[in-house]
Amino acid sequence: MKRRAFTARNVLMSSAAMAFALFAGAVYAEEKPADHTDGPAAAYEPSMTTLGQIKVEIPGRKEGDPVMTQEEFQKGTQIYFERCAGCHGVLRKGATGKPLTTDITRENGYEYLQSFITYGSPAGMPNWGTSGDMSEADVDLMARYLLLEPPAPPEFGMPEMLASWKVIVKPEDRPKEKMNDWDIDNLFSTTLRDAGQVALIDGATYEIKTVIDTGYAVHISRISASGRYLFVIGRDAKIVMIDLWMEVPAPVAEIKIGMEARSIETSKFEGWEDKIAIAGAYWPPQYVIMDGDTLEPKKIVSTRGNIYDEQVYHPEPRVAAILASHYKPEFIVNVKETGKIIMVDYTDLKNLKTVEIEAERFLHDGGLDGSKRYFITAANARGKLVVIDTKESKLAAITETGGQTPHPGRGANFTHPVHGPVWATSHLGDESVALIGTDPEGHPDQAWKIVDSFPALGGGSLFIKTHPNSDHLYTDATLNPDAETSGSVAVFTISKMGAADVDPELVTLPIAEWAGIPEGQPRVVQPEFNKDGTEVWFSVWNAKDKESAIVVVDDKTLELKKVIKDPRLVTPTGKFNVFNTRGDVY
Amino acid sequence: MKRRAFTARNVLMSSAAMAFALFAGAVYAEEKPADHTDGPAAAYEPSMTTLGQIKVEIPGRKEGDPVMTQEEFQKGTQIYFERCAGCHGVLRKGATGKPLTTDITRENGYEYLQSFITYGSPAGMPNWGTSGDMSEADVDLMARYLLLEPPAPPEFGMPEMLASWKVIVKPEDRPKEKMNDWDIDNLFSTTLRDAGQVALIDGATYEIKTVIDTGYAVHISRISASGRYLFVIGRDAKIVMIDLWMEVPAPVAEIKIGMEARSIETSKFEGWEDKIAIAGAYWPPQYVIMDGDTLEPKKIVSTRGNIYDEQVYHPEPRVAAILASHYKPEFIVNVKETGKIIMVDYTDLKNLKTVEIEAERFLHDGGLDGSKRYFITAANARGKLVVIDTKESKLAAITETGGQTPHPGRGANFTHPVHGPVWATSHLGDESVALIGTDPEGHPDQAWKIVDSFPALGGGSLFIKTHPNSDHLYTDATLNPDAETSGSVAVFTISKMGAADVDPELVTLPIAEWAGIPEGQPRVVQPEFNKDGTEVWFSVWNAKDKESAIVVVDDKTLELKKVIKDPRLVTPTGKFNVFNTRGDVY
Repeated sequence: MKRRAFTARNVLMSSAAMAFALFAGAVYAEEKPADHTDGPAAAYEPSMTTLGQIKVEIPGRKEGDPVMTQEEFQKGTQIYFERCAGCHGVLRKGATGKPLTTDITRENGYEYLQSFITYGSPAGMPNWGTSGDMSEADVDLMARYLLLEPPAPPEFGMPEMLASWKVIVKPEDRPKEKMNDWDIDNLFSTTLRDAGQVALIDGATYEIKTVIDTGYAVHISRISASGRYLFVIGRDAKIVMIDLWMEVPAPVAEIKIGMEARSIETSKFEGWEDKIAIAGAYWPPQYVIMDGDTLEPKKIVSTRGNIYDEQVYHPEPRVAAILASHYKPEFIVNVKETGKIIMVDYTDLKNLKTVEIEAERFLHDGGLDGSKRYFITAANARGKLVVIDTKESKLAAITETGGQTPHPGRGANFTHPVHGPVWATSHLGDESVALIGTDPEGHPDQAWKIVDSFPALGGGSLFIKTHPNSDHLYTDATLNPDAETSGSVAVFTISKMGAADVDPELVTLPIAEWAGIPEGQPRVVQPEFNKDGTEVWFSVWNAKDKESAIVVVDDKTLELKKVIKDPRLVTPTGKFNVFNTRGDVY
Repeated sequence: MKRRAFTARNVLMSSAAMAFALFAGAVYAEEKPADHTDGPAAAYEPSMTTLGQIKVEIPGRKEGDPVMTQEEFQKGTQIYFERCAGCHGVLRKGATGKPLTTDITRENGYEYLQSFITYGSPAGMPNWGTSGDMSEADVDLMARYLLLEPPAPPEFGMPEMLASWKVIVKPEDRPKEKMNDWDIDNLFSTTLRDAGQVALIDGATYEIKTVIDTGYAVHISRISASGRYLFVIGRDAKIVMIDLWMEVPAPVAEIKIGMEARSIETSKFEGWEDKIAIAGAYWPPQYVIMDGDTLEPKKIVSTRGNIYDEQVYHPEPRVAAILASHYKPEFIVNVKETGKIIMVDYTDLKNLKTVEIEAERFLHDGGLDGSKRYFITAANARGKLVVIDTKESKLAAITETGGQTPHPGRGANFTHPVHGPVWATSHLGDESVALIGTDPEGHPDQAWKIVDSFPALGGGSLFIKTHPNSDHLYTDATLNPDAETSGSVAVFTISKMGAADVDPELVTLPIAEWAGIPEGQPRVVQPEFNKDGTEVWFSVWNAKDKESAIVVVDDKTLELKKVIKDPRLVTPTGKFNVFNTRGDVY
């Protein structure tokens, strides 16, 4: 049986998932059956109904609910958190995945859900059943689970954050100067997803210098403006702050900022370097501003509010990408479900200035253009790019990419021979690469328009990358169902790109084959350049119990330069070159 | 039996309360008893428990819940909305009144609640039982009701607002010039609370020029900067916009912006006169920005978020007072439960700039100082005044008044012979009047400090007032339990005020006695000056089925000038002089 791209994401039982499952368990932990004979019990039976135009949803058991035991519900909650919540939302309101609220699941019914979970869909739903990732019993469980209201997850405010906050090495006890001879600017902070660790790998010698325990499934690494501090955030919302000046770099502070999170960033504006950190949570929907030296939480801001266009309340507007502006002392905060981008001024937290920009729903990731003035970000489930002018703190443009579900990562900036400066995204939902003009002064007619779109290897791409010193544009196809495709990357030569009516030629590099891994379906993910832009690194990401690798390619010759293998390299995904990450070089 | 001040607030069955009660009914409307024999029913029994430090509340029936029928629960919801929600909050999290969440009510128990509702407390809880406002059966019902989780009220977003929005007379069909010979600047827009109306009363002739149907219990009237449009908002969140240029002024637009509301304001900054309106809701907790010509809703902003100091999430941060800045194109929005004041820039709603100022919890009402640069507002349940610099959009000061529960209305500005420019508040919780220095340039040592505090008639004061042309400061004691006190006002002569160690003399005016109303306990509320500051008007507010009046006093002589009586004057409360209201003259 052929395995789909999604299905090899074997997931560690994370502490976040554990807490979430425990919480769900707590809801149903009452052992003693209630006495339903002492009064008009029907009066306490929750229901779903409408009042005028207002839909009224009351959680709880309804007539016709499938029967689940406490243990089953708890297991369902855990599986949902690990497999489903990322796309469908904790409250199941939908985002990258479709909504799964009970009005919808009940209309579709058990059979439909059971079949959909088993076989997936071409629009991106993984085939959890036929892939073997879920047993028949698990699929049955989840189909029943989705017919019930989701448990409401708990809040996570200042008391919880403070309880989780640890300053492991106080600022005054840290080194006054760099104590190692590492070339820290050329380190790659590499997520070891299912191990709950990051590996710091030297960009010249390929040596794993150290492996550091972090939160579960570190989503990104970010570097303080000075280059000294490395911040990582796990999907379980645990942040670890690492001091790269220590003899052996190690955590100096940590905090948990919610139940689930994706983003962390540090202040980059002149005079504010290294001073402030910010992280965004998926649950609770909020961002938190912290001291850049210690991670002390200073201010928590809820993102709960109204969707920008329909203007109805959304209980779960998750914080996706956050970037630090180079033009102002501001963070740029993507709020996914409400489709708002919030410019957060960090100079005066007691009089907090923000600009809430109406953008587009389902904001995801993005990056700055070459001038660093404009932030370009994907509203992925709407197939659009949103452009923010960080100098003016306002919307510059919203443009359809022409492709399905753009997923740029931070995108790729280069100067196109015909169209001038552009920024590129690939797509999750199709094979296309789209280029958007980014030069409103030199090429005003093409600014913020899609100037070209051409096919790469196939759908399922997560990242695209180039470097100012490179003539190549790389894009992966990590989630493509075809093993050969997901194991390869496409390379385009920038200087050979021409007019929009001729698709540029692509070279395919068989990265997974070069890695020489015999077992599993290793998939290639996230091209990342070294500091000088002479090498590009790819993760070859295999199941937790199988061999993975990092493959290094010579950017000039496109030849294999090195395969990094090590027993410690468990499920490597994102790799973040310190220099390129801190300077927004991509 | 002596009636307490609060208890004569006989409340009309409002449409908002009806909708709310209907909603609660809908929750419990399922007639058919659920089948609890088909599985592990205990698994669906909601519970309250903790997960680590996180309190987990699940609505629904708990073991030991008192039994209520659907009809009882519906009636309890209705009574709660009308009598209790204003102080305790829809979700019972507490504000001016104590929290009534089930963790607290269950610890206190039925007997305690029953007794407390019956007899009240000196801290401000009305004696609903002994006053006769609630029957013994009602008190029993409410004590049981409070042991159950509150029903979650529905959202009210753009679809609901648009459905309620009516443009009765389009802007192009309205008069091009003033079509009546009314002195509209000297009208008093007078709330007829329990009639769901306002009366427009001529300030010179005392004639009721017209009576206009509005929402229930109009909380305030506000006037557009040009003086043409009058906006009123009912407690049921219905806004009515009245064109004072029409031959007979009448509504030209209306909208409902939630289930419950208190505040409305219109833009006053130069160049933006009459362009924008804003209203704040108690439920859902949000404010909405509207077109100043038509009330078309443009932007809804949720205020749900974290409490400023504890930084834990609050589900019901209600919008209290809203004022228009004269220094910037901004509205000043008081958010009660989170203790935040939000400066909302109305120039670009798609890139909405706000400054969220950490202030103090339980923000209520307030007004501008004499220079109109500073906004002074009460954090009433914390006994404090918060001062905002509207020129800088930041906090200037937070000061304790020394009294209990300051309730300034818009306050009163005058120049004190010793202390210079001050702003005054009276108190709900005690008899004191506090003066805060408002002249940071001329009297920097006294700026934003309480420079004097002295006794007036007694506790239960709602409003204090003076006028630039008056030498008198008036304060009511509306909610004082003593009938004579609540029927009188205190007058201080400003020019005779001295140093802080000598309390100024007060003159008592027996306003209710002057009104000559034989029945009920008519209480005197809200001094309001005419345009020229030569007369001050008082509402003499009686029960709905009894006679009320407005008493006009000559400000120079302090003698009775006129008693306005009319069968249409049902429960008059707030009166808003057009000129003084639109110019923030108080």
